Amino acid sequence: MTTRVLTGITPSGTPHLGNYVGAIRPAIAASQAEGIESFFFLADLHSLIKAQEPDRTQRSTLEIAASWLACGLDPDKVWFYRQSDIPETTELMWLLTCVAGKGILNRAHAYKAAIDKNREEQLDDDAGVTAGLFMYPVLMAADILIFNANKVPVGRDQIQHIEMARDFGQRFNHVYGKEFFTLPEAVVDEQVSVLAGLDGRKMSKSYNNTIPLFASRAELKKLIAQIVTDSRAPGEPKDTEGSALFQLYQAFASAEQSAAFAQAFADGIGWGDAKAQLLDVVDGHLAPMRERYNALMAEPEKIEALLRRRGAQLREQFAVPLLRELRNAVGLRDLSSVGDKPQEKAAAKVALPLFKQYREADGQFYFKLLDGQGNLLLQSTGYPSPRDAGQRIAGLKQADQAEALGGTDLKLQVEAGQVLEALAAMREAVAD
Amino acid sequence: MTTRVLTGITPSGTPHLGNYVGAIRPAIAASQAEGIESFFFLADLHSLIKAQEPDRTQRSTLEIAASWLACGLDPDKVWFYRQSDIPETTELMWLLTCVAGKGILNRAHAYKAAIDKNREEQLDDDAGVTAGLFMYPVLMAADILIFNANKVPVGRDQIQHIEMARDFGQRFNHVYGKEFFTLPEAVVDEQVSVLAGLDGRKMSKSYNNTIPLFASRAELKKLIAQIVTDSRAPGEPKDTEGSALFQLYQAFASAEQSAAFAQAFADGIGWGDAKAQLLDVVDGHLAPMRERYNALMAEPEKIEALLRRRGAQLREQFAVPLLRELRNAVGLRDLSSVGDKPQEKAAAKVALPLFKQYREADGQFYFKLLDGQGNLLLQSTGYPSPRDAGQRIAGLKQADQAEALGGTDLKLQVEAGQVLEALAAMREAVAD
Repeated sequence: MTTRVLTGITPSGTPHLGNYVGAIRPAIAASQAEGIESFFFLADLHSLIKAQEPDRTQRSTLEIAASWLACGLDPDKVWFYRQSDIPETTELMWLLTCVAGKGILNRAHAYKAAIDKNREEQLDDDAGVTAGLFMYPVLMAADILIFNANKVPVGRDQIQHIEMARDFGQRFNHVYGKEFFTLPEAVVDEQVSVLAGLDGRKMSKSYNNTIPLFASRAELKKLIAQIVTDSRAPGEPKDTEGSALFQLYQAFASAEQSAAFAQAFADGIGWGDAKAQLLDVVDGHLAPMRERYNALMAEPEKIEALLRRRGAQLREQFAVPLLRELRNAVGLRDLSSVGDKPQEKAAAKVALPLFKQYREADGQFYFKLLDGQGNLLLQSTGYPSPRDAGQRIAGLKQADQAEALGGTDLKLQVEAGQVLEALAAMREAVAD
Repeated sequence: MTTRVLTGITPSGTPHLGNYVGAIRPAIAASQAEGIESFFFLADLHSLIKAQEPDRTQRSTLEIAASWLACGLDPDKVWFYRQSDIPETTELMWLLTCVAGKGILNRAHAYKAAIDKNREEQLDDDAGVTAGLFMYPVLMAADILIFNANKVPVGRDQIQHIEMARDFGQRFNHVYGKEFFTLPEAVVDEQVSVLAGLDGRKMSKSYNNTIPLFASRAELKKLIAQIVTDSRAPGEPKDTEGSALFQLYQAFASAEQSAAFAQAFADGIGWGDAKAQLLDVVDGHLAPMRERYNALMAEPEKIEALLRRRGAQLREQFAVPLLRELRNAVGLRDLSSVGDKPQEKAAAKVALPLFKQYREADGQFYFKLLDGQGNLLLQSTGYPSPRDAGQRIAGLKQADQAEALGGTDLKLQVEAGQVLEALAAMREAVAD
């Protein structure tokens, strides 16, 4: 059983080294673990709460998408998509809004912080607060629940939002009498690497002490020159502890390199030499990523196409079937089924044949076709990427001749005619 | 210039005579006026705030749809659709949520009433209040603004919601710098006919004094027999004023019949006779409607098909193009256009050729095809119904041969080749 891990990415412009070391690099590493199905989304709908500069929203979305891809996110191995490409999210948001207790939303940290600020300034509690800020946890719940994510890596301040998503999901399950939603768990990394900035404080845009992730070597050199050090002269031993310079080095170097660099500190390396070594190790690590980033930014249409393709696949595989089931559950139904035994009809409506894609322990990607009762009709062999598997499925969906079911990669479990019938039923349902 | 009038219908089961006289009949009459384009929608998403009984939601939606059609709503002359069939509504809701002030929502009557009730019972302000109740005005604003309705007939208690819709629309226009939304006006009918119920109080489900609109003649007879009268004997003159029986009669009779009935009251008609006459006039009015209702309820699949067809047309003509424009406006854009001159690209994205449908003073339905710059490419002659016009448009959208542009009903303003190019461009945009 794979674990679904979902990560939201705020599209807020080019990241800096602190974002890379503290968030991007560990998230990408985690996505490569066995038994994990990763979902990474660009939270552009969320960004509208604060960002009302359209050009900037667009540019930030592109820059952040290019950044994660350049850092090694493999869009054929993980689900990498744009929140606004899944319009079912806002439909689900309304369904959750109808079961979410308003009282719970009153207690959300971000909203309470806005109130506290207003009170300090002796303003009305809700002065300048939009409904978007207030409703943000419900949209976030929809993001998570629409893919039935098992785990959501978050910072400590976001645990509350995951608890709300659990609460809304649970209420919906309870009101409508079925486990529609998996209840997600927050995963908090207690060991988050906090990188020091140029001035020794935590690297953060708000301190204006950052090094942009894709700065050129020349820019890197200039910024590294500004790193604050003490005034010990060359030859004097230097402390590694509390040294922003050493910490930066360590974040990009191997254990051996770091040990050698610590020795150099003890041996009294001059700050100029130390900075030159830091530049080499940082630039050595970043140069290939920078090159990929620049190549990606030069062809934004490729990123657009990738996001659309993955969004369309996610809709088809998860969001559209789930919303069909949920609409049926809440009573937004085909009127011609009024008076039918609700259970039977409900089952009939959702019990279409279904392709299931999954990854096996061998690292390969498989799919199978099940009928509405869950019987296996067809089993694939392994493909190197979900994309290959997806293309084969897309081809099968069009199939109306037995020949289309040939090929050594498919093992039919029933007669070809029965598989073709199932495929035709799926086409019909989509045409509805 | 036609005026767009939008009416939301709560799917809350079979209506009674009071609903018919006070709301359904006048709304249908108003929809037949010249220069009006009417939108009537079944507010099934709204109904989820309170109704968490799926079977009932489904059945009520069917009953209410059948009721309005049986009462004479002409689905080829007005837009009759189901709220949940326009998923762009919830997308727009989120865009509006991001500009809506939370403080305004705190002051909504329905929400304040819930708080007051909780305070009376010494509960927390928000005890048992869902986010759905709180956010209801934003969904309603989306319903109105998505079709840029000019007028919204409402009860006095709903004026505030229309003001909120104006406020949210205006804020959006302001933040994103263009008049995307027409600001709707509330229309309050000060002369609403309030029908008396069996006990003389206002006919209302909460008083349990109603006569169902589609009751059989036998049921009508039984209920009319229960109407409270005074104890005057036959031969004694009777008051028409304050008489529920007389008022009911008047609501279904011609002026002449009513005058004769008043005379009969003065002449001392017996209550039994009066009730027999009332039964005749009410049943005479309702019998054909009841027959249509029963026929409609026997074929729910026809209502389902009608609602889907109209929903699909509305999406194509209004909701999808509007959302495309709004997404572009807020910055949810094709990433490949980053860095293009924003105005130019924005225009390029939305400046597709466009069919416009409209009604002329002659009562007929026309359409024209405009290019992205608003130049006329093709002009139709009049069709008897919007459906006919719509079918002709649907045919044209598939056209890729000059022959398809033949027919005396079309006047080309440019060469056929240019029209075909425009049609091809529209197909491509949809395929995107």
